[in-house]
Amino acid sequence: MLNVISVENAVTLSETLARRVARAERLPLAALPGRVTAEAVRCPEEIPGFARSTMDGVAVAAADVFGAGEAAPADLTVTGEILMGEAAAKPIRRGECVKIPTGGMLPAGADAVAPVEYLDFDFDTCLVYRAVSPWENVVRSGDDARAGAALFPAGTRLTPADVGVLAAAGVTECEVLARPRVGILSTGNEIVPAEAPVAPGKVRDVNAHLLEALCRAHGCETRRYGIVPDEEAALTAALQRAAAENDLALLSGGSSAGEKDLTARVIAALGEVKSHGVAMKPGKPTVIGKIGKTPVFGLPGHPAACYFVTDVLVRPCIEVLSGAPLPRPAVTAALTENVSSNHGREEYLCVSLQNGQATPVYGKSGVVSQLSAADGYLRIDRDREGLRQGETVIVYLF
Amino acid sequence: MLNVISVENAVTLSETLARRVARAERLPLAALPGRVTAEAVRCPEEIPGFARSTMDGVAVAAADVFGAGEAAPADLTVTGEILMGEAAAKPIRRGECVKIPTGGMLPAGADAVAPVEYLDFDFDTCLVYRAVSPWENVVRSGDDARAGAALFPAGTRLTPADVGVLAAAGVTECEVLARPRVGILSTGNEIVPAEAPVAPGKVRDVNAHLLEALCRAHGCETRRYGIVPDEEAALTAALQRAAAENDLALLSGGSSAGEKDLTARVIAALGEVKSHGVAMKPGKPTVIGKIGKTPVFGLPGHPAACYFVTDVLVRPCIEVLSGAPLPRPAVTAALTENVSSNHGREEYLCVSLQNGQATPVYGKSGVVSQLSAADGYLRIDRDREGLRQGETVIVYLF
Repeated sequence: MLNVISVENAVTLSETLARRVARAERLPLAALPGRVTAEAVRCPEEIPGFARSTMDGVAVAAADVFGAGEAAPADLTVTGEILMGEAAAKPIRRGECVKIPTGGMLPAGADAVAPVEYLDFDFDTCLVYRAVSPWENVVRSGDDARAGAALFPAGTRLTPADVGVLAAAGVTECEVLARPRVGILSTGNEIVPAEAPVAPGKVRDVNAHLLEALCRAHGCETRRYGIVPDEEAALTAALQRAAAENDLALLSGGSSAGEKDLTARVIAALGEVKSHGVAMKPGKPTVIGKIGKTPVFGLPGHPAACYFVTDVLVRPCIEVLSGAPLPRPAVTAALTENVSSNHGREEYLCVSLQNGQATPVYGKSGVVSQLSAADGYLRIDRDREGLRQGETVIVYLF
Repeated sequence: MLNVISVENAVTLSETLARRVARAERLPLAALPGRVTAEAVRCPEEIPGFARSTMDGVAVAAADVFGAGEAAPADLTVTGEILMGEAAAKPIRRGECVKIPTGGMLPAGADAVAPVEYLDFDFDTCLVYRAVSPWENVVRSGDDARAGAALFPAGTRLTPADVGVLAAAGVTECEVLARPRVGILSTGNEIVPAEAPVAPGKVRDVNAHLLEALCRAHGCETRRYGIVPDEEAALTAALQRAAAENDLALLSGGSSAGEKDLTARVIAALGEVKSHGVAMKPGKPTVIGKIGKTPVFGLPGHPAACYFVTDVLVRPCIEVLSGAPLPRPAVTAALTENVSSNHGREEYLCVSLQNGQATPVYGKSGVVSQLSAADGYLRIDRDREGLRQGETVIVYLF
């Protein structure tokens, strides 16, 4: 009954359904890490704005110390001292120099710094025992960034290091894309809120919290639409609202075929089902569709399966919505045992990590404890029949 | 003049100076990712609280289908149907079964589920063409987590996946350690606020913003103590306050020897200097000390050097304060060119990444643009004379 597509095609579909959020906001430096630039950020002025020494020494005209050496030092008149943080008000003339600290401003007339190791001072005279080339030991105006240069193109996810670059340029506010809004709802007559006591036959709503935490970690705003019973009218109303009010709607349902069919039917009635079934294990009955302009995912009810599908299929959609790739922490590890796999479906397996080794964490269908026992998961390509003990695998970290 | 210690010893010193924050707070699920458990989190009840089917089929007593097969099916009376989310109120007796969906609750008297593929229904009779063992296709009460079991030990940095585990157990609030408080100040007569126009000779305060962004990314609260002139009285007052009001104080100073000496002198007067000089490049004049119970770092003025020292030496201190290791995103890459290195000091180098290859980003001393041009940095061991083109290196991502 399911028209199953490959994981690769499902990822492409997920990306194609999404469109970068149009909303932007202006934020101060401290709020920028993790946010994505809405437009190119340009440097408003030359950085540095003046020539600066990179050594302690004397600021000179390079021409005045041309040919100087151990045997024949240049003999210059010291006319003063530049202090750190002070403007070099007085120019030097030929035959003159001024003392200058690392970071100090070069006076007009100077185009190089002779380092202190090669100097001998005698009252207001300075002997320079080494030649320096023009602009040696100097950062020139604009060397760090030129006025108008693009510090970051549009679509850059800013890091703490980038905040330093912006501060250096005097850019203390930045236009960034708004956080994507994600609407989250759960379906299933058996689902009760996590806060509630669990009556016999019921199960707590795990996925709403899991999805909320994952989406927030990916820089999204989340809004919860509660637990909806398996009834067409109720699900239609809730899903319509979640799609209308958000950039992405995530619905995690019970695990039965009937519930999945209801999800697909409701999405089809409100919009369009693009795919019902992905060749992955777990996660096969995943529904991907669109209501209005909003991508909608019908996710598995089992929490581990819900996690995998969200990380593999929903993440690419969030990347497009948010305007830039997301960091994806992963490590390589050696597998401690053989793992067999179903031919024809990409498979996902929880693993725990210790001393660079990955050990599979198996759990009965639907148990949540494998998530707490594991540190991450690995993928097994659909054309692999399994993995060998000792094989190096990539582990995507929780 | 500097009593230089190895990077390894500086990291140990950084860890030794810190003590886990004593403050804790109770937070709801959505606020937990990235936070560290203050105490072991126990499961308050059996999860699941009842035996649950993992298949669509009929709930049976395994003894009733013992020896059943294609040729000799067991013949059972269907007494009803368990609906998803409903309590299985009526027990089954010998010779009876009930229809059950995946996730449905097993009635008393049943200890296994015969899957639908092996069944034939005829009115209220069900033929079962396969034997099932006791508890086959069933998750038993407590299989996922036993009442009282530790879900997470104290000192666990919680992930989004962990939030799912807590929700499943009905633990919707958790006692976590408070965020470490970090006081940040800048010194230097040449430093002006990032917001201000830069007069000749001055330079913007980059490091306060860089440190604020880094510490926040590591889950700390930050408080800024402004820009302090290079005067003993002013620096003493500011540093004393920053140390008294925080779990960690970070001071980034100008790059001159005089400023570094002032920092060390003031820390020594208020508390104790543990190390003045680390065998790293850049970052050599780093000061590590303690005022009262608060670790204090005197960091380099050059932003790239400040970044490296913070990531290499301050991060271990924050890990101890916050109660658990921090994730450290890193990738491996092949180096595109030879890199020479100073013998005897661990060296840090900005690199950009493209197609799994790392290219060094060089910059004159003190320029900030290398941070924006690079994607991360690599470390060169102090006993290496350099790195070879094509060599695989670890790149720590910004």
